[in-house]
Amino acid sequence: MADLIEISDPADPRLADYRDLRDVELRKSLESSEGLFLAEGEKVVRRAVAGGFEPRSFLMAPKWLDGLADTLATTDAPCYVMSEKAAEEVTGFHVHRGALASLKRRPLPSVESVLAGARSVLVLEDIVDHTNVGAIFRSGAALGFDAVLLAPRCADPLYRRSIKVAMGAVFALPWTRLPDWYEALPSLSAAGFTTVALTLADDAVDIERAVEGVDKVALVLGSEGHGISPRWQHASDRRAIIPMSAGIDSLNVAAATAVACYVTARR
Amino acid sequence: MADLIEISDPADPRLADYRDLRDVELRKSLESSEGLFLAEGEKVVRRAVAGGFEPRSFLMAPKWLDGLADTLATTDAPCYVMSEKAAEEVTGFHVHRGALASLKRRPLPSVESVLAGARSVLVLEDIVDHTNVGAIFRSGAALGFDAVLLAPRCADPLYRRSIKVAMGAVFALPWTRLPDWYEALPSLSAAGFTTVALTLADDAVDIERAVEGVDKVALVLGSEGHGISPRWQHASDRRAIIPMSAGIDSLNVAAATAVACYVTARR
Repeated sequence: MADLIEISDPADPRLADYRDLRDVELRKSLESSEGLFLAEGEKVVRRAVAGGFEPRSFLMAPKWLDGLADTLATTDAPCYVMSEKAAEEVTGFHVHRGALASLKRRPLPSVESVLAGARSVLVLEDIVDHTNVGAIFRSGAALGFDAVLLAPRCADPLYRRSIKVAMGAVFALPWTRLPDWYEALPSLSAAGFTTVALTLADDAVDIERAVEGVDKVALVLGSEGHGISPRWQHASDRRAIIPMSAGIDSLNVAAATAVACYVTARR
Repeated sequence: MADLIEISDPADPRLADYRDLRDVELRKSLESSEGLFLAEGEKVVRRAVAGGFEPRSFLMAPKWLDGLADTLATTDAPCYVMSEKAAEEVTGFHVHRGALASLKRRPLPSVESVLAGARSVLVLEDIVDHTNVGAIFRSGAALGFDAVLLAPRCADPLYRRSIKVAMGAVFALPWTRLPDWYEALPSLSAAGFTTVALTLADDAVDIERAVEGVDKVALVLGSEGHGISPRWQHASDRRAIIPMSAGIDSLNVAAATAVACYVTARR
């Protein structure tokens, strides 16, 4: 059972994990140096712990204690209890869903273990927006994808915003970083996957045709601004497009991913 | 040609349209009482003016003047020119894409005129998140939908965030508010549309089956939290679901819309 510790002073050093949650750069640096990540909201906190991540601590107003009693019962980590107002001073914003947890990151699994048994995989090159990363995980999980691989510069799925938008799918779906950007796609092809890059390139074929009858598929998605890099466009086995109305900007990457996952899941 | 007016004082009363852009409630009240909306970013500002909306004024740093010279040439509205730092003091945040415009809202068109000639229509009940509204417009426009109808409580497509996420699709796609929530769906059916509600209801059929061979379709989408109201669920001609993995939260409404638009466009 978690140790309940009432704290009234927002400056208390035990609250260091929860400071200035709106400062993205500061958080990135703190979270990677300390090996932690933050979960926000009752449902997401519960899923993080149920997903096997070890809590460092919890922070919540008294009214959230009952709802998370089952989760708090599974751990010896401290649970700091504060008024909402004091918690707001620590975090820098109004914590809508009340409960926060700081959890330990785990070493990333190998690409081989993430791909073991997988038939449908998402490969994210340089998606830099945490909301998009979270949305892609959520859609992938809902539409039957088995795993996610991230290029070295893709945004962090364990950043608070990614986790929240993913509704915890980052805990359910196996994922890891690709250690080698340059050889990533040829390695996937060698492992038996047909790599299908979603792109507006001239030689792209309709996504339904690109995945039709293919067994193991790796759907490759590029950055919000410039799409997939020339290296990856060239290295992918197929280039595919979602047919769109003339004169309209392409779909947002999260929307395009949802459509492509849907089509690929039904191949 | 717009009148270029240099302003150095952030407190200048001519800048009233641009104050405190992060304060959602204040903005809602100001924008509806003044009958204005704000466009942000060179591309979006250009599309708003090209879409026939009359500018009240522009606000930008000197470096954006050249890029928008074509747009500024079409109007007599004042263009306030300020340093980025001073502009930030007015708006309350760093204006990444530099240019802002305040434009006049127009009277909403009638439902009949929005539906004239339309074959694929989106109907949004109580989508309260501006990002979702914008994403839905963008996907609808890209995937071949002809019009959007909004229930009385749906979030404003002309709110700055909606416009930005929609990449200006709110200027291209005809839309209006439904004056009568209660009779909205029966009226659409009477106008020859098959209303298809996207829902997790037990009697929902696969979306592909629901729209197969249907001529005029109105795809009905509900709020992020509770989905479509019982009244609208009951009043819709068909209830449809996107097949999903067991045990996973449903898709985000913007992702679900993208998939449903894709399927419906190919019916």
